[in-house]
This record gives sequence, structure tokens and C-alpha cells, in this order.
Amino acid sequence: MNAPPLVFDRTDPEGAIAEAAARCSNAGRWGADDVHGTLNFLTPEVRVAAATLVRRGVSFSLAQAFDEHGPQKGWRRRTNPVHSMTDTGTDAEYGDQGFPHGFGGADDLVSMPLQCSTQWDGLGHIFDHGRAYNGRRASEVVTSAGDAVTGIETAAALIAGRGVLLDVGRVFGTDGNAELPDGFAITPEHLDATAEAHGITVRRGDLVCVRTGRLARARREGWGDYAGGDSPGLSFACADWLHQAELAAIATDTWGFEVRPNEFDGAFQPLHQVVIPHLGLYVGEMWDLDALAADCAADGVHAFWLTAAPIPFTGAVGSPVNPLAVK
Amino acid sequence: MNAPPLVFDRTDPEGAIAEAAARCSNAGRWGADDVHGTLNFLTPEVRVAAATLVRRGVSFSLAQAFDEHGPQKGWRRRTNPVHSMTDTGTDAEYGDQGFPHGFGGADDLVSMPLQCSTQWDGLGHIFDHGRAYNGRRASEVVTSAGDAVTGIETAAALIAGRGVLLDVGRVFGTDGNAELPDGFAITPEHLDATAEAHGITVRRGDLVCVRTGRLARARREGWGDYAGGDSPGLSFACADWLHQAELAAIATDTWGFEVRPNEFDGAFQPLHQVVIPHLGLYVGEMWDLDALAADCAADGVHAFWLTAAPIPFTGAVGSPVNPLAVK
Amino acid sequence: MNAPPLVFDRTDPEGAIAEAAARCSNAGRWGADDVHGTLNFLTPEVRVAAATLVRRGVSFSLAQAFDEHGPQKGWRRRTNPVHSMTDTGTDAEYGDQGFPHGFGGADDLVSMPLQCSTQWDGLGHIFDHGRAYNGRRASEVVTSAGDAVTGIETAAALIAGRGVLLDVGRVFGTDGNAELPDGFAITPEHLDATAEAHGITVRRGDLVCVRTGRLARARREGWGDYAGGDSPGLSFACADWLHQAELAAIATDTWGFEVRPNEFDGAFQPLHQVVIPHLGLYVGEMWDLDALAADCAADGVHAFWLTAAPIPFTGAVGSPVNPLAVK
Amino acid sequence: MNAPPLVFDRTDPEGAIAEAAARCSNAGRWGADDVHGTLNFLTPEVRVAAATLVRRGVSFSLAQAFDEHGPQKGWRRRTNPVHSMTDTGTDAEYGDQGFPHGFGGADDLVSMPLQCSTQWDGLGHIFDHGRAYNGRRASEVVTSAGDAVTGIETAAALIAGRGVLLDVGRVFGTDGNAELPDGFAITPEHLDATAEAHGITVRRGDLVCVRTGRLARARREGWGDYAGGDSPGLSFACADWLHQAELAAIATDTWGFEVRPNEFDGAFQPLHQVVIPHLGLYVGEMWDLDALAADCAADGVHAFWLTAAPIPFTGAVGSPVNPLAVK
Repeated sequence: MNAPPLVFDRTDPEGAIAEAAARCSNAGRWGADDVHGTLNFLTPEVRVAAATLVRRGVSFSLAQAFDEHGPQKGWRRRTNPVHSMTDTGTDAEYGDQGFPHGFGGADDLVSMPLQCSTQWDGLGHIFDHGRAYNGRRASEVVTSAGDAVTGIETAAALIAGRGVLLDVGRVFGTDGNAELPDGFAITPEHLDATAEAHGITVRRGDLVCVRTGRLARARREGWGDYAGGDSPGLSFACADWLHQAELAAIATDTWGFEVRPNEFDGAFQPLHQVVIPHLGLYVGEMWDLDALAADCAADGVHAFWLTAAPIPFTGAVGSPVNPLAVK
Repeated sequence: MNAPPLVFDRTDPEGAIAEAAARCSNAGRWGADDVHGTLNFLTPEVRVAAATLVRRGVSFSLAQAFDEHGPQKGWRRRTNPVHSMTDTGTDAEYGDQGFPHGFGGADDLVSMPLQCSTQWDGLGHIFDHGRAYNGRRASEVVTSAGDAVTGIETAAALIAGRGVLLDVGRVFGTDGNAELPDGFAITPEHLDATAEAHGITVRRGDLVCVRTGRLARARREGWGDYAGGDSPGLSFACADWLHQAELAAIATDTWGFEVRPNEFDGAFQPLHQVVIPHLGLYVGEMWDLDALAADCAADGVHAFWLTAAPIPFTGAVGSPVNPLAVK
Repeated sequence: MNAPPLVFDRTDPEGAIAEAAARCSNAGRWGADDVHGTLNFLTPEVRVAAATLVRRGVSFSLAQAFDEHGPQKGWRRRTNPVHSMTDTGTDAEYGDQGFPHGFGGADDLVSMPLQCSTQWDGLGHIFDHGRAYNGRRASEVVTSAGDAVTGIETAAALIAGRGVLLDVGRVFGTDGNAELPDGFAITPEHLDATAEAHGITVRRGDLVCVRTGRLARARREGWGDYAGGDSPGLSFACADWLHQAELAAIATDTWGFEVRPNEFDGAFQPLHQVVIPHLGLYVGEMWDLDALAADCAADGVHAFWLTAAPIPFTGAVGSPVNPLAVK
Repeated sequence: MNAPPLVFDRTDPEGAIAEAAARCSNAGRWGADDVHGTLNFLTPEVRVAAATLVRRGVSFSLAQAFDEHGPQKGWRRRTNPVHSMTDTGTDAEYGDQGFPHGFGGADDLVSMPLQCSTQWDGLGHIFDHGRAYNGRRASEVVTSAGDAVTGIETAAALIAGRGVLLDVGRVFGTDGNAELPDGFAITPEHLDATAEAHGITVRRGDLVCVRTGRLARARREGWGDYAGGDSPGLSFACADWLHQAELAAIATDTWGFEVRPNEFDGAFQPLHQVVIPHLGLYVGEMWDLDALAADCAADGVHAFWLTAAPIPFTGAVGSPVNPLAVK
């Protein structure tokens, strides 16, 4: 895989985005009606091959805890999940629930932004100049009634296949704790070198998990600005790599997948603006890759069976997810 | 597997529950501190064997749609999910979001009961006379702060293994549309006969999906009283079968897993009262088994790889889930 | 007050709306920047005069109960309020809350549509052909970030003044129970006759409460289609009356203020489309006027001090309210 | 009014609370079934006299803004309100809402803790050793189904009467900006001296608003720890003053009404523990008294007509409120 040279004008994010979009667009690739984007790469054949990676039968949840102690601070009304009980064991034991024959129950509710913790970005999550994936007008796709075209429910049955961990934090971490510093821009060269260090080849249809170590640091030091602040992450230069690799999806252990501060002056998430509306790439954020990574470091096996099925909220532009890796 | 004779006094649910609980209790079986219940049966070895069931690479979502058009009518504050947008494509196209370089985004929220659609019941969901799974006091387990012991997050990494479909609706449906009528009590004999008809053997650690056809009827006729009304479902007589089969979990396409009206006078979900607090059984409800069942009927293969990872809401007594079956 | 003749072409709602809007518009009346609409009529002088109506010191809440037993059925995601506890007395008594010296507490949450029960419609609630109050483009006023111009918080300090009850149900009810039948269109003549029967004159700046008896019937018979179904209510012919009367606001005991079925073929709330974006009229819905009406019928006094302060949710296009009438 | 000497053992909050409770209890005062507590002091006669205070007709909202920019940081799941739109003006203008004749609409939702902004504490909000107001067991009053006895709806019609502003911040502020420092304990002597400075007498049935200036400082400096941190507020020594004054209610411009840090070692809100369960006192928190206070300072009139009607959420232990003062 040949990554393009890492040269772009840092004063012109809009131009760089337009050029990358022109190089990397998958618009029309799977037909004008396509709603699956890069999930088209995840074929039945990919799944059959991936299932052979279940060898020890051990499983790992790649989800963070969903609770009020999460990293969100309210940016654009993104709070942490609020969980509350409508019936409790205390009440059941006290005997006030009105059920017969000693029956007691507990029930609960949650209110949450769909992007507040471990998640998939749907294809309707990001637009480029008012355009969504496959060249559609943003207003035709996502109104206040939700995403009528590429809602996350369209991916309900698809995301199970070969997971690959690229533990860039462990390979390039400089301080002995397998963590990249904030602002570290992961380039295609870093990705390739990490794969090589792991002895693994990234293939078409893979679900690639890039570990930076940012979550490990937050776990140790407190959330701080984990949600929206500085962070290691993918360089804008990865757009072409992501395109050429023909991944089904990519996920990271950071809030926002790409490096922050962003690599352009006055920019905001320019890589998103290329990969979601133009590549149609499924992007996972805030995944917890640490336990899996420790296991992969121990046994040297960085490929596994991965299921990451979004909750099919009709018309949602994202979804909480509990990805399960099985080795 | 020997099911007990189907004789119980329909006027004494409390007595029948106590007797079944005495026969079937798993309390202490995996230690006083155990929080996993029957998921203990789902071992790595089970997973390794199950992964070989991925042969064609086709995948099926077993989740219903999560939206405002669901079956809930407000019983015990159970509404359907309410999804709303905090940013839209219309706004992005209009250009009022305040982002640079043509970036636009859509974000969303949800408010929902955790038991409103396709779900797992956690072990803290049901109590018997103020007692939860493993003999704990209900008040020690679930307060208004949530389930401090057996919260659904304890199952985050576990539920991936061998799924088995028992399509009782197709085997015993009488009217040519593979659906059992409301009030049809599925007995151990029905389960065994269905497995035999499918040419399959239920094994320790299985994730068994029982299809009644109730959802198919609701899809055709409208929800009506799908949520809480009459329904086919498991007979109370299945308690021992469920215990002896050493399933990891069971799930159905109905609101409440057991037959309704319940088989005792003035009763409410008596089988729940045995299997959750005493067996420690994971119970899935409102699963959509229809597409999978059609495929199984077509190819005659009723076992598959099944992942059904709950969203790990800390302290929740249940969770929405999008179960993925792969054959 | 001269009401226009009740002649309009029932096949042409769009034309009738345009004509009424042209006759009744208050656009520009209080300046291009105005955000208060008809609340401009509610001057300090009006308040001073109204306060003298407090004579017996008795007070009446005009709010319905806010709970899960309300009339909403989910139309456009309007559910009933969902209230849940995050701390309870049971838990406090059990002693598990972690507070010192015997302190215990209870806390709670609510999730609700702002238009689900007794409410004010804000001026950003309804548009006519993409135009909001005072000639503004709808997209300039209400995006997914809320109403940036006429949010309900702009009315936070204003709504206290002279309340007048027009108990049309009691004056024109035909079956002895002071209730108008569904589909009963209240015309200007009905309003004037009711005021005359009460011996009261409607004045500029009044907060007029029109009782139809629809809520009384729902209370007796069950909600049925109270939310969105057939109902008595104001005729489209009242647009001019409402304009000429220079009311500060109007409220009814119905879901939607105007008569339903609407008086035009294939129409939806045409009177709203005139009075909110063109008159800038504050409209209250789902008020409970029954206890107040009984008192007014008993003492013959139909004017009172009325406070109806919306909760100032920033950018909201409506608000729950508990209107208090004091006589 | 004779305040008791300000002597209490700071190492024994539990003892001090018990003694104050014994001196100040209103349990049984209005009968064993009473649910109104000190609102019993707010009689029709009080209202008739108070209405005469409406002289200039000017009105003041005493509510803070209800939005995501509020002071809450998530303590005990108390977030700021989350407001979202289910229909927008942008969508209406774009023309995608499905309504006839050019009709467009905007609708919205809110999710919020009932104690997150300007509010009333209901009588079920605080317990003393598992006991609620009027000697009831906490578990009999507030379960996860809500407050079945003293829910805030019981106060729906009552809270309109004579408001009195005691601007302690302005009278005792030391730095020229009418603000008390954090930790400033307002004693009965401060309250009496403030009333005297204002030339006003506190009377039975009054709704007393105590301004500390804490909100003014937060407005200037940012929220910081406004919610739950250090603050000026009422001294524990005020318990007897509050009892003897026979107020209908008291409200402050602070998060928690009483001084913080609390005046006892290791204590948490000891004055609450006396005044809510024992006096049955209605307590308002997070009120915005600044605009009203400026007006009172300017015209020297510190009494006014005050309406502060809670939204009657059935079974709620508190409610958002928009108090309106009219002078």
C-alpha cells in the first residue's frame, strides 16, 4: 500500500479536504441507492474466513462503561448517560409493588446522546458542504425526524467479521506505557509499521481497531479533556490509506478518531469530512481496546472475530455499541 | 432430558413457585460471589466449537426496530424509545452550525426504558419474596442507584456462543402460518419435539431462541396487546427443563417469554420468579427471529454462531441488544 | 366588536389562511425586532387593574396532572411525561444512601415533550409557508439548536394579568353537563354571547380562557382521542375576532385550541397558521378550567388575577405551565 | 422574634438536629393527614392583603435560564436540562414535514432532573432517620413510583401570596458589590437586621426570598462550584427563626439554601434535615433574585405579589418553577 506523501497546506483545510475527497470518493461505487458504504467490503466470504480466528474461545468487550461517570462535559448537549430506576429491589423487599405471590421486579430507564460513549458513527453523522454519503443532499438524508436514508438500522445485521488490532500506542509509545502523547498524528507509515511489527496484514473488509493509549491515560489520570480535547489520532494523511485499504470500518480508543489539535489552522475534524461523506467509512470511537491489546501483546495474535452490532435506533446517525472480540 | 410431569395446582402459584425453586435453584453453585448465573455454562470451549458453525457467512439481526412505533403502551412507565436530533442535515445544508470549511454534522439523543424492545433481562430484574439471584437480599442488590451487584455490565464480555433456534411456531403452528395462538403453553415436550424435528440437540451452554410466531402475527395484524397481553410462551412446566438443559440463556419473540395468560389464577409471570432469581438464567425478550427462522427452515440448519452483547449500562437490570446470528 | 361573516371556501384552506393573515397580521406592529407578539398588550397598567380582582384570596391551578397517565399516544413523538426517581424514601429508610447523621433524600428526573400537557405554544411553534412571527424566515428562528429568537424564555416575566373565563361549554352545552360536542365550532358570536351571559367585557391585554367542556368529558369517559382527535374548539372564523380583541393570550381546555375536524377539507390546524405566525398570539392548550369554572358559575365572577409563567427553557417553542388563577 | 442563642456543638450534628427538630416540629400541627406543611400559613386572607402590593404593574421572573449551560456537574445524576427539537423551522422551510397548505411546526423535548435549576423542594425531598414530614415513614411516602403522599402536585394551587425580599447580600456585603462571601452563615440577627434596614416586617404566611449575592458572583465569574460547593447561606441557627416566623416558604439564590461548608464537622445539609421533615417548610433554591433586588433597592419597596406555582408532576419531590414577582 502506497501512502501519498504527507504534504498538504496547513492553511487550507478546505482545499485539502476537496482534493482528498476527489481522490478517495466511493460515491456511486456500489450504486446510487447504496446505504452501506464500506460495509460492502464485509462479505460473507470475509466472515467465513474470520470465524476461524476463534481458537481459544476467550472474549473481550471493547465497550467503555455507560454511566454518569463518563467523559462528556456537555459539548453540543452531549452529556453522559443518565440511568434511573422505575422499580427497585428495595421497594420489592419492602413489599410495595402490587404484584402477587411474592413477585418483585426492578426496571430502568436511560436518557443519553447516541454519541456519548463507545459508538459507531453512522453515515449520516457528517456532511461536506451540505452533502452526505453517495452525493445526497444533507437535507434529504437527516431532518429532525432522523436519517431517513442511511440510519444506523441499515447496518443492523452487517458488522461481524475479522477484527485487527493495530496497537500503535504499544509500538510507538515512547515512555514505556504504550501510550502516544496528545497531538501525535498517526500516519500511514505508522499504521504499516505497526502491522508489520504485529506480523499481520490488513485486508479488504477488515474491521481495524487502532489503539493509541489515550483511554489508558484517561483511566489513570482522569478524563480531563478526553472528550473533545487534545489527543493522539489519525493524521489527515491517512485518508488515502483508509481508501486503498478497503476497510469495512475503523475504530479507535479516542473521542474523535483523528489527531487533535487538527493538522490545519482553524480546522475541525477534517478527516471525518473526507471519510464519512466521501468514503462512506464506518468509524468507531471511544472503544476500550486495552484488555484486548494486553492479550494480543501476550499471545502475539492480533486478528480475531469481531462483532459490533449497533442498536438499530431507526433513523439514528450513530449508536452505542458493545463490540465483542473473540480469539 | 426428563421433564417433570405437568401437574401443578393452578390455584397455588406461590406454592408451585416455591417447589420449582427448591428443585431448580443454582444458588451457591458457582460460589457465593457469583454474578453470572447460567452464563457460567458458556465456556471458552463452547465458543470454540460454536465458531465452526459459521459456514456461509450470512448474518441476521435478531433485533426489532427501536423507535416510537414499537409495542409499548406505558405500562409501568415503559414507553417506546424517543429519538431526537440535536443537529440535522437540514441545518448543515442551511449552513447555520458554526463549523469551518464546509463541515456539517448531525447528532442525536434517545430516552428509553431499557426493557422496551429487544433486550436481555439482567439477574437483578426479578425477585422472589425480596430475594435476588444467589440468595441475596433484593435491597442489597438493586436500589435507586441501580444494581450494584449483578448489573448488566457484568455480562458485557460473555454472550457469544452457540445459538440454537427452536421454531416451535413452525413445528406446532396449526394454521399454516407458523404461528402459535395466544395462550399456547409450550411444554418441555414441545421443546424436545421441536429439537427432534430440526434434527438438533440442545447442549449445555447454548443460547436457545424459541420462536412462537407471536411477533410475525403482530407484524401482520398490528401490535395490539403484544406488550403485556395474551401470548404464546413457555409453560411454567419448563422450569425444570431449563434447569436441566443447563442453557446459558433463552430468548423468545414475545414480550414476556412465558405463556399469557399465566397458568395460575391471579398470577403474574411465575416462571420469571423461578428462573431469574433461582436459576440465574439470562432471559431475552422481544427478539425478532423471523428472518433467521426462514433461513433455518430453508437450509435445515438450526445452530449458528450468536453474539448478543448488552450495552453495559452500569447497574442496569436489563439492556437493549442487537443479537447477531451468523451461519 | 364586529366579527367578519362566517363565509370561507372550505375547499381552499390555503386561500382562506392567506386572506385571514392579510387582514390580521401584526407583523411590524411592535417593530422589526419584536419577540413578544400579543404579550405587548399586557402592560403594567393592565396588571395594576387586574390585581384588584383578588377579593376572596382563593386560588385555582389550571394545570392537568403531569404524569404517565396523560392523553398522549405518541403522535410526532409526543409521549406523556416519564418521571423517575434517582433516590427514594425506601432507600433512605433502608439506610443505603451514604449520607451522615441520619440524613436521607429523594431526587427525581423527568423526560417529556414540552407540548405534552398544560402548556403555552411559543411564537416559534408554528410557521406559515416557512415564515415565523414578524416575517422572519423559519430557518432563522428555529433550528435543531432551538428557537434563537422567540424562545419561550422571552416570555418568562410577562404573563401575569387579567384572566377572563368564557365558559362556552356551560352557556351553549346542550346536554345539561356544560360540554360542547366534538366538532362544535365556536364562532365569534358564541364568544360574544358567552361574555354577555357572564356579564363581562373582554378587554385589550386580557388572558382569555375558553372552556369547552372537552376535558370534563375526557375525565369522565377516558382520554380516547383527546390528544389529536375530534374536539370542540374555535372556528377559523375567530381569527379576526382574536385580532380585533387585542388579547394578550388565549387558552382552552382542549388539545389543539381550534375545532376538530378542522373546517376545511384536508386541512391541519389552519387557525394556528394564522394566529401564531401572523398575530403573534400566545396560545395555551390543555388547560384544566373545570374547578375555576365551577367557582365562577357559583359566584358569577368570571374575571380574576391570572399568572401563567412558562418555565424558561432557553430556545423552547413551548413550555409546560401551571397557571394560577386567584379570585 | 427571639432567635435562640447561636450555640451548638459543632462535633455533634446529629444531636443538634435532634434538639432543633424537637423544638421546631410542626408534626401533627395541621392534623395527621396534612400534606401542605407551612403552606397552611398561606391563607386566602394573606393573598387578599398581598394583592394590594401590585402598584406599578412591573413583573420580574425569578428563574434562572433552563438550559445546558447551567451549573450542574452530574452530582447524584443531576445534569443540566437537555432540550432537543423534534421538528424545526429549518425543516418547515425546507418543506419536508408532510403538512398541508404551507403549515409548518416546531416541537421539542426536555430531559432534566427536577432539582437542576430554579426549583421548589417538595416535602418528600428530605428525610430524618427514615422519617418524612408529619412523622411518616420515608418508605410509605417515596418509593421508586414517586411520592405517593406529599408529591409536589399537592402544592399546585397554593403558592401565590406576599413575597418579601431580604437582601442580606446588599445589607451585609462587604466589598461594594452586594455579595456575601462563601461560608458566610446568615444568622437570625442578620435576617432581622436586613428586614429592619429594608423597613419591612416579616409576617406569618410570607414567601421570603433571601438574596446572598452568590448567583451574581457566579454570573460574573462563571459557575465554578455553584452547584454543591462553598456558598453563603442560612446558618443552622435559623431553624428556630424559620419556625417562629411561620413563613409559608423560603427561597434563596444559592444551590442549597444553607451555608456551605456546613457548620458541623462531617455534616451534610443539617438545616434541611430539620426544616423539611420537621417544620414541613417549602424551600426554594437557585432562584434569581438580582433583577428584583435591584428594583427593590431603587424604590425601597421590598414586598410584592409573588406567584411560584410548581409544575404538578405527580409524585415528584421537587419541581422546576418560574416564580413571578409583581410590584
